[in-house]
Amino acid sequence: MSEPNIYARELDRVPANYEALSPLTFLERAASIHPNKTAVVHGRVRRSWAETYRRCRQLASALNRQGIGKGDTVSILCPNLPEHFEAHFGVPMAGAVLNSVNTRLDAAAVAFILQHAETRILITEREMSAIAKGALALLEPEHRPLVIDIDDPCYEGGELLGDITYEAFIANGDPEFEWAGPDDEWDAITLNYTSGTTGNPKGVVYHHRGAYLNAVSNVMSWGMPGQSVYLWTLPMFHCNGWCFPWTMAAVTGVNVCLRHVRAEQILELIRTEKVDHFCGAPIVLGMIAGAAPEQKAGISHTIKVMTAGAPPPAAVIQRMEEMGFVVTHVYGLTETYGPCVVCEWNDEWNGRSVAEKAKLKARQGVRAPMQEGLMVADPATLQPVPRDAETIGEIFMRGNIVMKGYLKNAPTTEESFAGGWFHSGDLAVWHPDGYIEIKDRSKDIIISGGENISSIEVEDVLYRHPQIQDAAVVARKDEKWGEVPCAFVTLKPGATLSAGEVIDYCREHMARFKIPKKVVFLELPRTSTGKVQKFILRQWANEEGNA
Amino acid sequence: MSEPNIYARELDRVPANYEALSPLTFLERAASIHPNKTAVVHGRVRRSWAETYRRCRQLASALNRQGIGKGDTVSILCPNLPEHFEAHFGVPMAGAVLNSVNTRLDAAAVAFILQHAETRILITEREMSAIAKGALALLEPEHRPLVIDIDDPCYEGGELLGDITYEAFIANGDPEFEWAGPDDEWDAITLNYTSGTTGNPKGVVYHHRGAYLNAVSNVMSWGMPGQSVYLWTLPMFHCNGWCFPWTMAAVTGVNVCLRHVRAEQILELIRTEKVDHFCGAPIVLGMIAGAAPEQKAGISHTIKVMTAGAPPPAAVIQRMEEMGFVVTHVYGLTETYGPCVVCEWNDEWNGRSVAEKAKLKARQGVRAPMQEGLMVADPATLQPVPRDAETIGEIFMRGNIVMKGYLKNAPTTEESFAGGWFHSGDLAVWHPDGYIEIKDRSKDIIISGGENISSIEVEDVLYRHPQIQDAAVVARKDEKWGEVPCAFVTLKPGATLSAGEVIDYCREHMARFKIPKKVVFLELPRTSTGKVQKFILRQWANEEGNA
Repeated sequence: MSEPNIYARELDRVPANYEALSPLTFLERAASIHPNKTAVVHGRVRRSWAETYRRCRQLASALNRQGIGKGDTVSILCPNLPEHFEAHFGVPMAGAVLNSVNTRLDAAAVAFILQHAETRILITEREMSAIAKGALALLEPEHRPLVIDIDDPCYEGGELLGDITYEAFIANGDPEFEWAGPDDEWDAITLNYTSGTTGNPKGVVYHHRGAYLNAVSNVMSWGMPGQSVYLWTLPMFHCNGWCFPWTMAAVTGVNVCLRHVRAEQILELIRTEKVDHFCGAPIVLGMIAGAAPEQKAGISHTIKVMTAGAPPPAAVIQRMEEMGFVVTHVYGLTETYGPCVVCEWNDEWNGRSVAEKAKLKARQGVRAPMQEGLMVADPATLQPVPRDAETIGEIFMRGNIVMKGYLKNAPTTEESFAGGWFHSGDLAVWHPDGYIEIKDRSKDIIISGGENISSIEVEDVLYRHPQIQDAAVVARKDEKWGEVPCAFVTLKPGATLSAGEVIDYCREHMARFKIPKKVVFLELPRTSTGKVQKFILRQWANEEGNA
Repeated sequence: MSEPNIYARELDRVPANYEALSPLTFLERAASIHPNKTAVVHGRVRRSWAETYRRCRQLASALNRQGIGKGDTVSILCPNLPEHFEAHFGVPMAGAVLNSVNTRLDAAAVAFILQHAETRILITEREMSAIAKGALALLEPEHRPLVIDIDDPCYEGGELLGDITYEAFIANGDPEFEWAGPDDEWDAITLNYTSGTTGNPKGVVYHHRGAYLNAVSNVMSWGMPGQSVYLWTLPMFHCNGWCFPWTMAAVTGVNVCLRHVRAEQILELIRTEKVDHFCGAPIVLGMIAGAAPEQKAGISHTIKVMTAGAPPPAAVIQRMEEMGFVVTHVYGLTETYGPCVVCEWNDEWNGRSVAEKAKLKARQGVRAPMQEGLMVADPATLQPVPRDAETIGEIFMRGNIVMKGYLKNAPTTEESFAGGWFHSGDLAVWHPDGYIEIKDRSKDIIISGGENISSIEVEDVLYRHPQIQDAAVVARKDEKWGEVPCAFVTLKPGATLSAGEVIDYCREHMARFKIPKKVVFLELPRTSTGKVQKFILRQWANEEGNA
């Protein structure tokens, strides 16, 4: 061995030049630099960064006094309230891990999550009390966590079912609590359960390093200036609100809270609080685009919107942009801290037609600034597919904003990281310009007579029909072909269209083997985040009586 | 020992979820997402991100073929040309360390640096050829590096003195070279020698992690949008241009190169290239503010300017802002990757008078988004001073944008990191709002009769005199008082002011013990970056004949 090179000698990590990356530092910085600036708005509640920091320290201190520390789970079941924001800091400041639970789940699913996460404390609130009560009743008594109730002054109804209110609990804490950051930036910060459509949900573990980097990646993707005003349309239980609680501390912005996603209230808050940024599923955008003109009056500033979950329909983008909203389409999974792919706009497209622009924007895009690797590849060989916009492959990610792994599930963690890449399970094509476009979930692809059919492609054609409002296509088992496409369609009010007319229309617009063999008219079942629940449709399509 | 908690089991770093942070990834991303966008402009030369990336890979490949790899030093002596930008990527992509040498040094100082850095390759260019030649002649023959000449088509004069031209050298390299990022984000990326005013310069080593984080911190401090257009007024040899080569790749912006810092050319490039961001010492701002009105015509967009090195004078800030320039004052040292403190604007100050605003902006400020710790403290006890705007202490920093250490100088590294903080050597007060304000370098403080006199404070008073253009105050040895202030003053053209009148003016505006005992009229000696060379003044003040 030769002696180490000159740069590898006596230049070690010491406390002066190394600190574990953690988004908790952003809160302390915001409170120290802009103590009087508004951090959180919720109805009549309006708290500064100094006040919010004090409350987070109280929460951390009270948790410690309760015996909660490193490796313990604190779960929260709560809409987008200030306390939910605080929990993103206070819980990890106590060394513990925050598990934010999807508020649309039923009691059994919540109970499964609370138990699997080994929850020691559950923070809940009035509107959630029925679900929380049901879930708690399903737990074995020795697994019952301490329950803390948020008593939101802006909400009537529900009940307080816990051991102590949130305000009483944090009153036990020291507002000057000397918290410490993580020993290691690889330490867990949060736990997010995937809303799996089949089987039990998996617990995705995030670490401080990834949360820090994705919080910053949001700023970079959006070119987000300091002191932005952010509206909480996206649930905080969804990948920790795509890491935006930490992003907002990093930019010392304003968090405008929102209990219910309703167009009127969204537009009212945009007007009165001068909201300039928010995130939401395309369904939220559609809601805003479709609002009555008088609700939109008085809004003249530019508002940036990030959307994900499904490609935003062209008409919705166009209407939003006419209203002064700039839409950015992003893509990600719970396993990637939310968005890790962004449809970054290219000025070369400025001259295109509105329809072409919408089509370009409907693609998922390229990797976010802090994501190191992204490819569309053959799932067996991990060889990238050609960038021909045609060959379908699986989307793979690699880098610092990929999860730590699945909690207590080493085999699935290993499988999902096989070959040095995270296997997303989403199927896409790669365009010549490097942008990826999702064609389907692996399990949503329809394989008919040996040919792959993208259900999204068939749906796209259906959506373009002027009388069709909503459409979903799934595989139906078929003796001859293996699988055939089955279409579920919602018509626009007043429309009259027969199954035969839908099939005729498809015949004009797609290859023969892609044409749905069956068309069913109904209201599509959707999840809380606006995703069509295809597993319900698939079940229906394959039941004997419906075949 | 209890068993590890559930979050510490089976959730390890694997290639899918961990990659060493490195700003080199930003270049690869820029080239892959915006291959056709302009990366670099220099006179008639205009190169895209794809082309720039190819050239950087060629450079890295050619260096490897030359036997250069991990732990080797490649030095560059060059103005702000495209090749200098490329070296910030190509050299570390080869695994080597880039040492960008101050172009204003004399041959002896350059020779010292080349030898101390164990330079294996020197990249130089025509305008630098005399200095480079002189430095090379001073090296022992066995230390002579391979010399590569940049032959800038926009420059006439100088000579090619090396072994090969840059273009011929990189032509040996593979434009598809499969480079690898660092094994460890703690690996060295660059080496920057401090321009010490006494003794030999010290080699400050940066690592990939710090360069990545400070590149991003620049974006955050400035709220810098994607695809910004950046003018290279700040030398790249200065803390790697404050890490802006990497910042510009992170935002896929445009690097507008600049060989000489002259107002006319700066304004011309702002107009024609639509430059929207640049950095420079207050002297550069003064140059622009003082330019003829016809040179400023036709500039209507907002331009953001970062300045450091000395507090920008109020009048300059005011004139710049009237022209549509928004000035941000930052502060840092070579040891902190350039700016790690930023005078972040607070909207609460908007209503103040112009003079008050300038005074607020002249303070150094608060820590940059990616710097974890900043304090003003007693250098002996490391106890923070009270935030009273009066008590002078030393500035200390801690965190991820503090250098790896000094090359081959463990005792000084250890000393500068003593107590877990980096000792800046700058003296400041801490304001009640948490903003720090530099009062002096430790060595610039004047201790007279046991009282500390801030030379900056005395200079501030002198600057406010309508007939004084430039002023500097240093300590002069005195038998009775130990030290007394000695003022060096440049008058405005046409002004007539005697030493006695200056002293009378001071008497009206400061405590008796602070009044300069001697006033000398002359043109102040300044460094390449606009800093007054106080060591020259100090020497002069203390020479027998001048006492």
